[in-house]
Order: sequence, then C-alpha cells, then structure tokens
Amino acid sequence: MLEDLKQQVCQANLDLVSAGLVTLTWGNVSGRSEDGKHFVIKPSGVAYDVMRPEHMVVLDLATGETVEGELRPSSDTATHRLLYQAWPGVGGITHTHSPKATAFAQARRELPCYGTTHADHFSGTVPVARPLTQEEIDSAYEANTGHVIIERFADLDPIAIPAVLVASHAPFAWGKNAAESVKNAIALEACAAMAIDSLALNPALGPVEAYLLDKHYQRKHGPGAYYGQKK
Amino acid sequence: MLEDLKQQVCQANLDLVSAGLVTLTWGNVSGRSEDGKHFVIKPSGVAYDVMRPEHMVVLDLATGETVEGELRPSSDTATHRLLYQAWPGVGGITHTHSPKATAFAQARRELPCYGTTHADHFSGTVPVARPLTQEEIDSAYEANTGHVIIERFADLDPIAIPAVLVASHAPFAWGKNAAESVKNAIALEACAAMAIDSLALNPALGPVEAYLLDKHYQRKHGPGAYYGQKK
Amino acid sequence: MLEDLKQQVCQANLDLVSAGLVTLTWGNVSGRSEDGKHFVIKPSGVAYDVMRPEHMVVLDLATGETVEGELRPSSDTATHRLLYQAWPGVGGITHTHSPKATAFAQARRELPCYGTTHADHFSGTVPVARPLTQEEIDSAYEANTGHVIIERFADLDPIAIPAVLVASHAPFAWGKNAAESVKNAIALEACAAMAIDSLALNPALGPVEAYLLDKHYQRKHGPGAYYGQKK
Amino acid sequence: MLEDLKQQVCQANLDLVSAGLVTLTWGNVSGRSEDGKHFVIKPSGVAYDVMRPEHMVVLDLATGETVEGELRPSSDTATHRLLYQAWPGVGGITHTHSPKATAFAQARRELPCYGTTHADHFSGTVPVARPLTQEEIDSAYEANTGHVIIERFADLDPIAIPAVLVASHAPFAWGKNAAESVKNAIALEACAAMAIDSLALNPALGPVEAYLLDKHYQRKHGPGAYYGQKK
Repeated sequence: MLEDLKQQVCQANLDLVSAGLVTLTWGNVSGRSEDGKHFVIKPSGVAYDVMRPEHMVVLDLATGETVEGELRPSSDTATHRLLYQAWPGVGGITHTHSPKATAFAQARRELPCYGTTHADHFSGTVPVARPLTQEEIDSAYEANTGHVIIERFADLDPIAIPAVLVASHAPFAWGKNAAESVKNAIALEACAAMAIDSLALNPALGPVEAYLLDKHYQRKHGPGAYYGQKK
Repeated sequence: MLEDLKQQVCQANLDLVSAGLVTLTWGNVSGRSEDGKHFVIKPSGVAYDVMRPEHMVVLDLATGETVEGELRPSSDTATHRLLYQAWPGVGGITHTHSPKATAFAQARRELPCYGTTHADHFSGTVPVARPLTQEEIDSAYEANTGHVIIERFADLDPIAIPAVLVASHAPFAWGKNAAESVKNAIALEACAAMAIDSLALNPALGPVEAYLLDKHYQRKHGPGAYYGQKK
Repeated sequence: MLEDLKQQVCQANLDLVSAGLVTLTWGNVSGRSEDGKHFVIKPSGVAYDVMRPEHMVVLDLATGETVEGELRPSSDTATHRLLYQAWPGVGGITHTHSPKATAFAQARRELPCYGTTHADHFSGTVPVARPLTQEEIDSAYEANTGHVIIERFADLDPIAIPAVLVASHAPFAWGKNAAESVKNAIALEACAAMAIDSLALNPALGPVEAYLLDKHYQRKHGPGAYYGQKK
Repeated sequence: MLEDLKQQVCQANLDLVSAGLVTLTWGNVSGRSEDGKHFVIKPSGVAYDVMRPEHMVVLDLATGETVEGELRPSSDTATHRLLYQAWPGVGGITHTHSPKATAFAQARRELPCYGTTHADHFSGTVPVARPLTQEEIDSAYEANTGHVIIERFADLDPIAIPAVLVASHAPFAWGKNAAESVKNAIALEACAAMAIDSLALNPALGPVEAYLLDKHYQRKHGPGAYYGQKK
C-alpha cells in the first residue's frame, strides 16, 4: 500500500543524507497519505546505504499502530504523529541533528530572521520549544516532544514558520510533503550556519525590518508569488 | 539565438554549484551578449541537476522583455539588468547566498582587504550597499536592489572592485563574462571565510598597506600583469 | 589467523576515513579477538588507499608481541593494549586526531552533555585525561598514555562513557567491537563540533538535566532500549 | 629532461587539490633535481583539471632562467628559488592560500604547538615572517618574499620547522621532496584549524610542554624514530 508515498519518503530520507544533514543514522523523514489516514516513516536505526522504499513503515494516524512494514518505525514516530494530528496542512516532517541548527537548539537560542535567505523560507523567528519536565520525559517522551512543539506554536502559524528548535535536542522542519520538509530542514541549517557567523561579526545584530521579511516571504509563498516556475 | 552564450551561462551556473557556493537553488549567473543588446540568465527555481543550455532565458537589455525561452527568468533578473545598463564593462554577473559572504552582508559589515588573496581579486574594500527603504522594497524591489548597488559605486570602480554585499541579503559579483563573475564570487566567499577567522584571531585587525594591495592587484590585472599565461 | 577480525578492523579503519575523521594517516582502529587473547591493529603510517586486511598486525594481548604481520603495528599500539587489559567489556578502540574533538583535548576542556546527540552515545561528560609528566613521557610514552586514561576512569564506567580526551593530544573512543568504536569516534567529533558553536551562542551553557541525559542514553542502550531494530 | 621530477611535481600539485587546500588556482608546488642544479614548478594560473607533467616548467637554480617548458612558471617562482638556494636540505616547496593557515598569516599571529598533531610535524612554533616594506614590494616582490622568510629563520632550523606564515599573505611549507612539502602544508592547515577552535575554547591557551613536543617530534623524525615503517 501507498507505494508512491513510500518511494517519496525513502527518497526524501536519502536526499537528507546527500545534503550533508545526517551523521550516522541521526535523521528521519515522514510523509502523510493524501487521504490523511496514514503516514509513512523511516525505520529506526537502519543504515542509509541499504535503505529502500519497502523498508518504510506505514502507520495509522489515528491509532499510531503499524499497518505495514517488517521493521520498527523511527523512535521519533510519536512526535511526527502528534504534529500531523495538530496541523492538517502539514504533509511531511523532517527531523535532523544537523550541526548548526542543533547548536542553536542546544544553546536554547531562537533563530531570528537575519536576512533574505531566512525570509525566503520562514516568515519570522524560528522558535525554541521549552525543555520537557522530568514528568514529561519519564511518561511519554516522544509524544510530549510533539506536545511542547504544538504548545510553542499556539500563537504561531506552522505553515508560515515550518521549523522549530527543541531545547537541548535538535530541529524539526515540515512542509506540504516529505520533499518540502527536507528543503526547509536544509534552509534552516544554512540559516543557522550563517547566523552563527553573522553574530560573530556583529554581536548586537537584530532581525531584519518586517517589510523586507514580508517582501521576500511573499514573493516566494504569497498569493502573487513570482519566484520559481508557474505550477 | 546566442547558443554560445547560453552554453557559457549554463556552465557558469553549474560551476557555481561545483564550487560549493549554492544551497538548494539559491544562486544565478547571467551573461551579456557581445553586441550588448541582450543578456542570458538562469531560469527561476530550476534544479541544477536537470539544467541545460536550452533552459536559459534570453532578455532584451533595453526593455527587460524575454525574447527567447519557455521558462520564467530568475527572480533577480531586474537587478542584473540594471547593473549591465550602468556598467558597460561588465559582461557577466553572479548572485549567490554563499554562506560566509552572506554572513558579512547580514552583519552589514564591509570586507576590507586583509591579505593578498583579497588583493588578487578586489582592489580595495568590498562595500556594503545600504538597506532599501520600505518604499523601495514595496515598489520595484529587484530593480531597486540594482539601484542601491549602483549608488554605492558612485565613487568606486566596479571593474576594480567586482563585488558588493547587499545589506541583510547576500553578495553579487561580476566580471568581463559569466565565467569571470563566478571566479570573483568564489574569491569573495574564500576571502570572507578567511576574514571571519582572521578577525577571531585578531579582533583589531586592519586592512593591509595600500602598496601591498596595489602590488598584488596590479601583478594580476594591471598593464604589466605577469600572473597566469600570456593571452 | 583471525581473518574475520582483520577484515573488520581494516574496514573500520577505512570507515574512519570515509567519515572524514582522518587527515593524512592520523588515526588507527583495533579490535580484540573473541577469546580475548589477541588484538588486531592497523600498521603504522600506511596510506589508506592501499590498505588491505592482510596488512593488519596481530598481537598477543598478554605479551604485546606481534604474532602475525609483516609490518610494524601502529605507534599507539601500547595504548590500545593497556585499555583492552583494563576493560574486559571493550572489544574495539579508535584513536583519531579529528579536528573538533582534538580542539577540546588541546584546550584541556572536558565535553559536557549539551544535548540529546551526546546523550545518545555518552552517559555523561567526556572527560579529559591529565597531561603526562616528563618522566611518564620519557619512559614508556604510549603505555603511560593508556595508564592516565585508565586512571581518569577510576570512578567512571568506560562502557557508559566510551571516549576520552587526552590532554594536548587527541581523543580515543571505544566500543564492543571495532565498528562500534568508530561510531563513537564519529559521534564524539559531531558533539564536539556542535558544542563549540553552542558555546559561541551561549557562553554560560551548562549540561542538560540528568533526567534528559538518562532518558536518551537508556532508550538506546538500557535494558528496555527501543532505538534501532531488535537484535 | 627530469621527466620523473616533472611527474612528481605535477602529482604533488594535484594532491594539493585533492586535499582541499586549493581554491581556484591558488597554490603551487615545486621540486629540486637530485643534482641540485634545477627545480621544476607548476606553470602560472593553469587550471588543475587539465594539468599534465609536460606543462611543468624547468628552471636553472643558479640563474633563475627557464630551461624547458612552453608556459610561464608560477608567479611565485622567485620565492621558491631563494629558499632552495638558502636551504640545501630542502627538496620540495608548497605554497598555498589554505584558509585556516592564511587566517593566521593575515592576523600576523604565529602558530604555537598546541598539541601532538603539531609536534608530529613541526618542532616548535610556526613563525610569521615580517611584512615587506614598500621598497621591498616595489623592487623585487617575490624574491624579497623569499628574503624575509630566510631572515625569519636566521635562528631557526628550516628542516625541523618546515613552514612559515608570510604576514598578510599566506603559508609556505617545504620538505625533503615535493610530496613531503605537500604533507607539511596539509598538516599546517589542520593544525591551524584546530588552533582556532582551541583558542575559542581556551583563549589563554599556551604551547605544550617542551618534553611532549620533543617526544612526538623525535618519535617520528629523530634518530630512533619508530613511527611508520622501516625505510
């Protein structure tokens, strides 16, 4: 079942490796089925050089049960599931430990928009989700990781800001499908890398003006977008 | 039309990727025709691994209209056009979001000549173009990006200093043709990377003496240049 | 003799190169035989592009004598031997001069757990072994390097914290076999790289809470581990 | 003439590129003939992907005249020649603008021995040669670059410390032949990179103890050296 989606999710996981965002097996991408009833995710701890579409695991979004696949799904599956349930517009999710974005997450420092590269992908500051309490960690760690992300976006639009930094952990990014979530993960890593150097050059650096942020975000994502080719 | 130029511009765009200056599709190179009437530029948002010369877009320099090509030209086309119109000696332009040069642009910090690597390519400080006003952004953003660059070079020679850092955005570099503009973009990124480390090692670092700057620039670009092979 | 182990140790040395942890010939991996009587190690100063399993050197663990192999074993062989003798649970050892972990070793600064990436591999701070005295260096340098590492772990569990930073030198990592020791060396380098950036972003950064550290370490290594596939 | 040497020098130049030390055409390697009468050097400004042994230029060491080769020799040829004349034990020289070593050169900051990686290759601090005066630059720039390097080594042994940082310029490294000079250039770049991070982690970091420096240098280069294979 869902052969196309398994193929797309497998390819998205491999694209994450090609982009240099993955060390060892630290990273996973998932995608939601078109009818919204299932999602497909990478198996846990499987080496990328032997990964094929048939290794992908299909889960029921409502119950969280595996409905197809021989292998255990990613250990972060419960986080992915919570985000799909909370955000109907999201069709793909990427989790990495990409080094520069993870440095921000570890430093518990949010990533403001320091330039147009950021504005092209994120309509404002990429926020930090609060640290989990001991109770949250001990009870249902991965699900509660999803809950603190959703809590952090209570007043934010996850479509307009498709990424978060989980405190002391690492980033999650998302998009309308698996491939778009990988692109946002790549953009986040690039923006984090440039931000570290920008702050070294100018420690007092503040975010760009709102009108520059809006212009760049809208020319790519707004109703009158003119970046890229007509779809 | 302009098959040779389309081939050169396509190759220059691919060289930009090989040099590691491009993340996703963030980068574009253009070249001016020999008669000065047209310029050829990369299409907007097309993946590099499928890009071929026939995808390049040919535009009329005087009107800015597409005269050949099925695809939309780069969203930064208006910036390229303004620079060609202002600077007759420029035959190629490269725009990137290369990480270290972009860090300087985001920090709104100019890049002085800290050593001979810089002096081999840029006859002095690579300047920062001022931020655009809200009016400039809202009216004709990409053309106005060209205008602030040209304004910044009012008292500078764009042939001798073939690059600029656009505040809160990223670098543009140029040269006598597309390939030379890519070389200058590569040199700018390398100089920015070394400058960040040099400043970490010596925060009070100032530019090199004018006579060392002139010697290196002239031995490569001056009337008695002796770097490289005789042309 | 020990053809399988020679194959595994040779491959682990090559994996170290693929992972980007080796410059020139700076790095060596060894593995202990199943009966615990021998260990196999890379020859000293041999280029990786010509290295084959038959070049590996087999040594007697009790005497430290070469029992098979035409080439000199790694100059760090005595250090490996001491660690195998002290720690029965260790079946593979990796020594590198990987740049970011070596920066910590040179700075004589221990590497606390700043996030879950670290907690997935190291159950606490990766410690620094004290500098050797002049007498220790002049008498039996490589053996004494082993002694100061073992001394540093007097109150630490080398299975739970499978790496050390030797002051003014570089890291050693280990694991249940050669391949696992390479994985820990890779994880250490990644954590060191992220720590440098995290500290630049937040110089007052402290280690993560013990309950987050324990959760991540246990979900991968504890009795109820659920990361990866069932063995 | 000197076909073997041309082959070795060409390969050494290509190895410099493989090691990631070269951007564009910034780098050159030369080698001295066994009889000491000639040296072979890379041509100036030729792309590495088309470079072959027959492109190498043969010069007379005594006169500095080209005795074979159609192409102009490297613009830095006069520097190489002066070093060969001053130091009979040197058989190969490498000049790069490798980014981390160049950052030290630009910062005019010498590179002390911060650990055993450095001690394995350089028996002490890699020094900075003083800036050239305007007169020295205007008269015979490349030869005078050689003179200030030789001046800096008046009380240093160039065999024991096979590299220098030329102020506001970049490093030169050397060795008994072209291949060894490339290895020292690679080691210098790696040590500079680790030093930048070590200093960020410990700004007050001083050089290692002399007995550790001596031990590591001697185990690889001294009369009783036991690193690598017997020659």
